Amino acid sequence: MIPATPMIGQGFDAHRFAEPGSGRPLWLAGLFWPVPEGADAVQAARYEGIEGDSDGDVAAHALIDALLSAAGLGDIGSLFGVGADAHGAGMHGTDMLRETVAHLTEHGFTPVSASVAVIGNRPKIGTRRAEAETALSEAVGCRVSVTATTTDRMGFTGRGEGVAAIANALVVRD
Amino acid sequence: MIPATPMIGQGFDAHRFAEPGSGRPLWLAGLFWPVPEGADAVQAARYEGIEGDSDGDVAAHALIDALLSAAGLGDIGSLFGVGADAHGAGMHGTDMLRETVAHLTEHGFTPVSASVAVIGNRPKIGTRRAEAETALSEAVGCRVSVTATTTDRMGFTGRGEGVAAIANALVVRD
Amino acid sequence: MIPATPMIGQGFDAHRFAEPGSGRPLWLAGLFWPVPEGADAVQAARYEGIEGDSDGDVAAHALIDALLSAAGLGDIGSLFGVGADAHGAGMHGTDMLRETVAHLTEHGFTPVSASVAVIGNRPKIGTRRAEAETALSEAVGCRVSVTATTTDRMGFTGRGEGVAAIANALVVRD
Ligand SMILES: [Zn+2]
Ligand SMILES: [Zn+2]
Ligand SMILES: [Zn+2]
Repeated sequence: MIPATPMIGQGFDAHRFAEPGSGRPLWLAGLFWPVPEGADAVQAARYEGIEGDSDGDVAAHALIDALLSAAGLGDIGSLFGVGADAHGAGMHGTDMLRETVAHLTEHGFTPVSASVAVIGNRPKIGTRRAEAETALSEAVGCRVSVTATTTDRMGFTGRGEGVAAIANALVVRD
Repeated sequence: MIPATPMIGQGFDAHRFAEPGSGRPLWLAGLFWPVPEGADAVQAARYEGIEGDSDGDVAAHALIDALLSAAGLGDIGSLFGVGADAHGAGMHGTDMLRETVAHLTEHGFTPVSASVAVIGNRPKIGTRRAEAETALSEAVGCRVSVTATTTDRMGFTGRGEGVAAIANALVVRD
Repeated sequence: MIPATPMIGQGFDAHRFAEPGSGRPLWLAGLFWPVPEGADAVQAARYEGIEGDSDGDVAAHALIDALLSAAGLGDIGSLFGVGADAHGAGMHGTDMLRETVAHLTEHGFTPVSASVAVIGNRPKIGTRRAEAETALSEAVGCRVSVTATTTDRMGFTGRGEGVAAIANALVVRD
């Protein structure tokens, strides 16, 4: 079989960290990041969750936009809605990714590969990078790579106000 | 025919919104965004244009850089110049895209697919996403996808100072 | 031979400029940017280097993450380490790129094309774009394109605090 020329998509997302003491669980890059055992208040504040109608997983959301745009099937807002009453409200990033890929499959598209660069001070993605890649790859059904970087104390990610992610993806039409 | 391996390009652009009352028309993602009928001053300010020597369409400009870099043919500055006297001064994003694609064609390259993520508070791209995709796809001659996101009130896009766009593209050599 | 479907990667990096008077040499996009002959203090300050354990070349670093993620081989932190004692400490971007590609080759991957968008006020990449593309392309062993843009005085790049880069890459498996 001659492989089809793949189609490309770009995605971006950014969300704000919840206020310290919110108790909001931290989900990012397909993983739950629990407060470490025995953490004091300062350490615990580094595991404050990310705001959003869903779990706030910017890595998953950027990947969803990359996949949908590669297939020409809209974006996360058109598929999951916006706001607390939206279809995507309360959903985890990996579940949203699975639903996104099901949507692509219905329309005859298959993800080939995808990648996401997570931009922020915390959590330290590098400590669980392989685990994150496994979680996201299982959700998408193809190899998904995760890289992590900071902005050297500059800008909203550098000041720790929030976290951002840039993703790209290739899909083929059956 | 065996499809050639495509080549990839990345583009980014950001521009400042004009001051309220500038009367500058708002062009973004290949579309004109008129002030709605009966808008008051506050609503009208949300349709203030984007600064730039051309129409300031960051989505089109990011796509131009993605296409040119995929073909290894320079960037928007080398093709259209910089400043009020530049060749690209006063041009609409879709016209610049058409000229970019003509440049690629002359050099034996054909766009295969492209995608742009628009980052900003306004205008609400999602309300006219299909229309924007049609305008940009017609200009480029292949499927161009548009996604839209905000930065959750963080950074220069979140504060409404300006708008940014990240694009990617695949081209093949004839 | 039927060309394999390529795999895609995304990379991002940002670093802070060194303080004026640091004497740190400026390396960016694979090139050394010397202070021009006869420059006064104000002009010389525009050639202040970029902070980082290595030479701070965000364009090279973003490309490294794009290449590694395309191949599913980790990121710049996992390959070169982090901090002043890291394996990558003091290395130039092009040397880090060469080592990255050697790592890909060992694992059976070949870069097909790559592209990087450099975001910042200085140095003026456009004045030496072809030279930068040659340096980076030689290091990677395939065509690497460079585009350059500013953020119109907005954000940390617009205020001249630092410089950022977004890269993508395609690789094939042998
Ligand atoms: Zn989101
Ligand atoms: Zn522009
Ligand atoms: Zn770096």
